[in-house]
Amino acid sequence: MNKYWYDESHLVGTIPMEQLLSTSGLELAKKIISGELPAPSMGKALNFRMTEADEGRIVFRDTPLDEYYNPVGTVHGGWSGAILDSSLACCVWTMVPVGVFYTTAEFKVNLIRPMTDVTGEVICEARVIHMGRKLATSEGTLKTLDGKLIAHGTETCAIFNPLEK
Amino acid sequence: MNKYWYDESHLVGTIPMEQLLSTSGLELAKKIISGELPAPSMGKALNFRMTEADEGRIVFRDTPLDEYYNPVGTVHGGWSGAILDSSLACCVWTMVPVGVFYTTAEFKVNLIRPMTDVTGEVICEARVIHMGRKLATSEGTLKTLDGKLIAHGTETCAIFNPLEK
Amino acid sequence: MNKYWYDESHLVGTIPMEQLLSTSGLELAKKIISGELPAPSMGKALNFRMTEADEGRIVFRDTPLDEYYNPVGTVHGGWSGAILDSSLACCVWTMVPVGVFYTTAEFKVNLIRPMTDVTGEVICEARVIHMGRKLATSEGTLKTLDGKLIAHGTETCAIFNPLEK
Amino acid sequence: MNKYWYDESHLVGTIPMEQLLSTSGLELAKKIISGELPAPSMGKALNFRMTEADEGRIVFRDTPLDEYYNPVGTVHGGWSGAILDSSLACCVWTMVPVGVFYTTAEFKVNLIRPMTDVTGEVICEARVIHMGRKLATSEGTLKTLDGKLIAHGTETCAIFNPLEK
Repeated sequence: MNKYWYDESHLVGTIPMEQLLSTSGLELAKKIISGELPAPSMGKALNFRMTEADEGRIVFRDTPLDEYYNPVGTVHGGWSGAILDSSLACCVWTMVPVGVFYTTAEFKVNLIRPMTDVTGEVICEARVIHMGRKLATSEGTLKTLDGKLIAHGTETCAIFNPLEK
Repeated sequence: MNKYWYDESHLVGTIPMEQLLSTSGLELAKKIISGELPAPSMGKALNFRMTEADEGRIVFRDTPLDEYYNPVGTVHGGWSGAILDSSLACCVWTMVPVGVFYTTAEFKVNLIRPMTDVTGEVICEARVIHMGRKLATSEGTLKTLDGKLIAHGTETCAIFNPLEK
Repeated sequence: MNKYWYDESHLVGTIPMEQLLSTSGLELAKKIISGELPAPSMGKALNFRMTEADEGRIVFRDTPLDEYYNPVGTVHGGWSGAILDSSLACCVWTMVPVGVFYTTAEFKVNLIRPMTDVTGEVICEARVIHMGRKLATSEGTLKTLDGKLIAHGTETCAIFNPLEK
Repeated sequence: MNKYWYDESHLVGTIPMEQLLSTSGLELAKKIISGELPAPSMGKALNFRMTEADEGRIVFRDTPLDEYYNPVGTVHGGWSGAILDSSLACCVWTMVPVGVFYTTAEFKVNLIRPMTDVTGEVICEARVIHMGRKLATSEGTLKTLDGKLIAHGTETCAIFNPLEK
């Protein structure tokens, strides 16, 4: 079995601005999952992909590899941070209306258990805590397939009109 | 000029346990910088490397690439998070005595400005705020070469004896 | 109706060291709730009290007053922070064994909605996310009686043996 | 010597909306320090006061008392959190233009050393890290008079036009 999520057949890239401005975040996320829109390159670099998107909720599936190790032979904490940031931001995206943008203001991650290249697939699930007009917050967990907690985090996003000066 | 930090000539991998147990964190960091010890694979995956290590202070140099993009065409926030976590953890490492281990408990990152593949080299510098017997804290910044702030963060590390049950 | 939780009949103070060393955190919390042990003075200063304690879960009830205002006439963010820190720490306490101590390493609070002295009683509930031998993490919310989210937060606690040098 | 900062001669209260809308944050802060405008009631409740305000920098002086104790006889972590939140928010305030408002989105606090009622006066200093049009971030420390670090933290504030719907 291939340990990599992405092969040559997967679309990887960015979404054109016209499409970003004319489509809701939830629709965009669903089209990334279906492969109709390209997955972000960071997913390929870190071997993770979005697999579920509902209003206010996102799931990523990820496989840690020895390509993401720190000096002491476990997966770098930044890998968990990047996966969690993806979920924490994208679950907010699913509630952002057409024509409105958002950006991550900050995120905090707690690292609970180490991972290695034998950990296997892990699941990162995040949900929106609060969706306001200017700010949104979310929380998420990263777990092994048998439910062991690897890491958890929270995030604050800023919501804004991209056309406003 | 090659935009990648690592080529085939660079040692990449993990440090043997005997060496981890018999060498101070500062010495280990200096040997990673000089190339005497392998750099962690995560540095190759995300195109960053440690360039300076003093007692309580670390500098990483990093180059964001379009391989680390989010769906909207800027560098994924998780890339800044991973770079900052590296610096925030390694500056604590430089103060960890021989035979003692440490691990990241949590980190928080604020994202200030976006990056793209034309941002060029960025500098991540971190320093220890508090070094205790059980816990340590650190703070760091990620900046462009002309001093623009990209992101900043703080971290809490746990210090422990690896032989203690 | 009196807006203050504490009157002259309430025991307020600290718990003797012998009792701290010989009783589990959950028992201590339950005795503070029943009034058998003194409530901490901070609860009187900020008008909050613990009302439920189970293994890994704590509830505080609190009433914001105009005595806790910031310059612009809403309740100071530090009041929500203090209430949340109380819950986030005490839910960890309910899982700390006899003879073992714990301390707050860090907490992060998101402020969602303002409060004033007409907000009335609010409920702060927290639960343990992870209880390890050295570190524990928890999460909590502060809500109005009709369920509106005021603030939420997470905390990292360090667990230690008070007799260990 | 009186251990309380506030006596009957001090103005305590909120600032009228007209004044908030027509004065810069820095001017308002300076007038609170001089006593021309009332200090916020939270300062009286927790025995702290603003003593210096410059563009992007704030100092509070505070005295912990046994009125702010947790169950184990040290100052409640929420006291440090409230003091730090005050400084972290007010240093942003000093850079907010006339007619613009701001609010705390989140703050994170690391607690380093315990305090008791013999700790004496402590100093909380904060400075702005980044001042944007929509978001600002700040960092601060709480120290004893002889420079021992008690706690430190960072904050994210949202900047907004109060008249915008």
